[in-house]
Amino acid sequence: MKISLKKIAELVGGRSKGNSEKIITGVAPFDEASSDHITFADNKKLLKKIDETNAGAVIVPSGFEESLKNIVIVDNPRVAFAKIIGLFHPPSRPDYSNSTDGICSNTYIGNNFVCGENVSIAPFVVIGNNVVIGNNVTLYPNVVIGDNVVMGNDLLIYPNVTVLERCKIGNRVTIHAGSVIGSDGYGFAPDGDKYYKIPQKGIVQIDDDVEIGACNTIDRATLGKTWIRQGVKTDNLVQIAHNVTVGENTLLVAQVGISGSTIIGKHATIAGQAGIAGHIIIGDNATVGPQAGVTKSVPDNQIVSGSPEMPHRLWLRVYRIIPMLPELSKKLSEIEKRLNDIELKATGETNG
Amino acid sequence: MKISLKKIAELVGGRSKGNSEKIITGVAPFDEASSDHITFADNKKLLKKIDETNAGAVIVPSGFEESLKNIVIVDNPRVAFAKIIGLFHPPSRPDYSNSTDGICSNTYIGNNFVCGENVSIAPFVVIGNNVVIGNNVTLYPNVVIGDNVVMGNDLLIYPNVTVLERCKIGNRVTIHAGSVIGSDGYGFAPDGDKYYKIPQKGIVQIDDDVEIGACNTIDRATLGKTWIRQGVKTDNLVQIAHNVTVGENTLLVAQVGISGSTIIGKHATIAGQAGIAGHIIIGDNATVGPQAGVTKSVPDNQIVSGSPEMPHRLWLRVYRIIPMLPELSKKLSEIEKRLNDIELKATGETNG
Amino acid sequence: MKISLKKIAELVGGRSKGNSEKIITGVAPFDEASSDHITFADNKKLLKKIDETNAGAVIVPSGFEESLKNIVIVDNPRVAFAKIIGLFHPPSRPDYSNSTDGICSNTYIGNNFVCGENVSIAPFVVIGNNVVIGNNVTLYPNVVIGDNVVMGNDLLIYPNVTVLERCKIGNRVTIHAGSVIGSDGYGFAPDGDKYYKIPQKGIVQIDDDVEIGACNTIDRATLGKTWIRQGVKTDNLVQIAHNVTVGENTLLVAQVGISGSTIIGKHATIAGQAGIAGHIIIGDNATVGPQAGVTKSVPDNQIVSGSPEMPHRLWLRVYRIIPMLPELSKKLSEIEKRLNDIELKATGETNG
Repeated sequence: MKISLKKIAELVGGRSKGNSEKIITGVAPFDEASSDHITFADNKKLLKKIDETNAGAVIVPSGFEESLKNIVIVDNPRVAFAKIIGLFHPPSRPDYSNSTDGICSNTYIGNNFVCGENVSIAPFVVIGNNVVIGNNVTLYPNVVIGDNVVMGNDLLIYPNVTVLERCKIGNRVTIHAGSVIGSDGYGFAPDGDKYYKIPQKGIVQIDDDVEIGACNTIDRATLGKTWIRQGVKTDNLVQIAHNVTVGENTLLVAQVGISGSTIIGKHATIAGQAGIAGHIIIGDNATVGPQAGVTKSVPDNQIVSGSPEMPHRLWLRVYRIIPMLPELSKKLSEIEKRLNDIELKATGETNG
Repeated sequence: MKISLKKIAELVGGRSKGNSEKIITGVAPFDEASSDHITFADNKKLLKKIDETNAGAVIVPSGFEESLKNIVIVDNPRVAFAKIIGLFHPPSRPDYSNSTDGICSNTYIGNNFVCGENVSIAPFVVIGNNVVIGNNVTLYPNVVIGDNVVMGNDLLIYPNVTVLERCKIGNRVTIHAGSVIGSDGYGFAPDGDKYYKIPQKGIVQIDDDVEIGACNTIDRATLGKTWIRQGVKTDNLVQIAHNVTVGENTLLVAQVGISGSTIIGKHATIAGQAGIAGHIIIGDNATVGPQAGVTKSVPDNQIVSGSPEMPHRLWLRVYRIIPMLPELSKKLSEIEKRLNDIELKATGETNG
Repeated sequence: MKISLKKIAELVGGRSKGNSEKIITGVAPFDEASSDHITFADNKKLLKKIDETNAGAVIVPSGFEESLKNIVIVDNPRVAFAKIIGLFHPPSRPDYSNSTDGICSNTYIGNNFVCGENVSIAPFVVIGNNVVIGNNVTLYPNVVIGDNVVMGNDLLIYPNVTVLERCKIGNRVTIHAGSVIGSDGYGFAPDGDKYYKIPQKGIVQIDDDVEIGACNTIDRATLGKTWIRQGVKTDNLVQIAHNVTVGENTLLVAQVGISGSTIIGKHATIAGQAGIAGHIIIGDNATVGPQAGVTKSVPDNQIVSGSPEMPHRLWLRVYRIIPMLPELSKKLSEIEKRLNDIELKATGETNG
């Protein structure tokens, strides 16, 4: 694909400066771009060394206009860059030679299937009974959809994903390979030394614009629903227990675990490998640091770190001191000795 | 389903008080129940506010008899509640239109398959050679069973589960979607700068009444067996390395990792995201706290927390002090200064 | 299989001592071996009690020659033992009755498939368009290979593995069940309160002699490649984010997470459940302790532990002090009181 800088600026709602007729043939990172590529710089560090990239053009934030480079000035360089990647690498759909109306012959489709238009259902997909799917749905190979699942439009469900019975999935949802939606919650009642299984009969509901990473496990509620609300994005290997709610536009980074019945607010960020206890509330816009272990509710807008968690600013101070503990302990012993000397001397003087 | 309170009491081995003829049509959590629902209250907090639920009846523990509510008095309200959930939501089995004797036509079944009665084998299941399965076994779509696997009765194996060659699975076992039973142990012998693979030729043995969560990885032993003993319940994304033994009725919560050759006792609890070192022993009835990192053996009945682990009571005290470290450090500096002053003065007095 | 000790010594490039004609029929761990078995002892602890094993023969390191046992003396007992396990338990390949030229009839094979010799492609495998695979490749059931994937010779790809479009896999690579190669990187540009997806258009490249554990998630690069270099061995449930490079012969133990764009050197070891921040460099031969949280680059050959990380030797001292914190805190209070007394007395004396 060949496209002029001017045209690119138009497409991303920005304006170009320099040689607007410059032809761009691809998109690349700042350090790897060559003279026909466009790249982006959205922070001071990159903007400072903008002349060092070999890129033929650079997307920059508004306010930054001085450069010998060809630039495209936009409000949000990162979003503009994302759009341009999509331009040069348009999404493609798997193409199977044995499909009719988008449904491969070697699938299993249950009874009463309600299927939208323009779907692509790959080999060895299994769809249970009474399933509804919308338009523009892509089910990759070996996806399993349980009975009575209802799914919306514009879905991408990658290989080996399992969506179990009665779960609900909204529109514009992507689920990456190997993820499990609707496994049983971990509910067992102690019964002497043994455990009695509490049947898990709720569902998982995933709202619009959600993206679920690879090998996530999202358990169904005991009763009611585990709820992944609009715009949530999860990374890989994330565990979400039964009856959890994850609020709008919240990020769950890789290997995070959320225990049962916890409510995460909207626009929160839970960093990698953090664990959240059950039956608590993480506030809107809250941030939980990587590997944190959160045991109590976190108010809106707060940043916590550590295990157990504490306010992030405190944690920063604590973690500067921890490596000094051997020194502090030694100092304490010395002080004790000096104090002993003083007291001994004082006693001596008193007695003397 | 409509059922009288009296009948419910009978079914769970309790006795009803209040309007025993009351008709119950469903089961719901304490806060969400409506007047035709039954719920349960098994702790002081809920019992105290029993009049606040809209539920038509409440299951309560013996000893609690005073209420204006319709109640069902039982020894173990949680188990009774589990039974009643099962009553209103009986387990259902996937139903495939192309199955004969419960085996779908689009499966692959190897040679010498010994198959019990009343099985349900879903589309795209693969069963290797010389496999034995018992009665009342449900294999969901895309399950893969390797050669020479032997499995008992009353199994539920969810979609996309892999059970590799020669593993043994007992009776009344459930394995949730995406789990892998019998992958190779992580065994490599250093050979200069490289690593030489140690063939992993043992098996995984899963005993009766075990439930394995979603996306677990349970490695086969190098030689001998990795052993999941009777009544173990694992949550999602649990890692169990080669040659581990997990004792009877032990709980492994989500994202726990157990390193090679470690032995976990019976009725232990390993909380979420904890990691257990290799070649150690965790005692019977031991509890390991969330995110703990256990490096040494833990005696029976002990509770440990922290990484590295320490007795839980000590850890509670330690973790109250950790956020105070900046303060303690400051105090230490002040004390040092005051001590300097005293010593200086003393020297002055001596010299003076 | 029956084989003489002499023959075994030959096969592993060692020499036997004792009864070289002794017939060995199997291989077993030190504690479990019986008189027809061979075992190994490669450390002082085992060598010391070599007379306690019932094994008919023991593989020992050179330098250790004195024993009443039949021994096989080699440079690397562990590698020799691995070879002997392989001798008694030779690798076997799944065998499907409906295969022609190694490709089962119930697979889906896309257009322009370039297939090497001596392959085994199991039921319900899906191979996209324009895929190339080499010789001696085993694809277990339900493996999904995306469009334009190129793979080398001598591969073992276990059940339910997903390799997505355009990824490259070298020779002698093993991927265990449930792993996902080439899922989208976790890249979203903040756009007001929402997130705009950054298309992930790079690939994953896995070089020769790599072994990937079960249920790993290895994301494709945004642009360019996520790169798993020669000889890397990963354990189960490992997360590798977009644009990461893992250097030659590096070990990633179970449940490790590597954040985006980080470079791990060669022959490094990242122990279980450790997390590595993004955009940093872990040096050659570096070791990261279990559950460590590495936030900054680590130089070559260094060992770090803790979260955040610190040099391992410092960490060892720190972690001896942490359980003593309540005591230290108490001591500090006592010292303060004693100091107060001294100062009060001094003031008294001055005033007196």
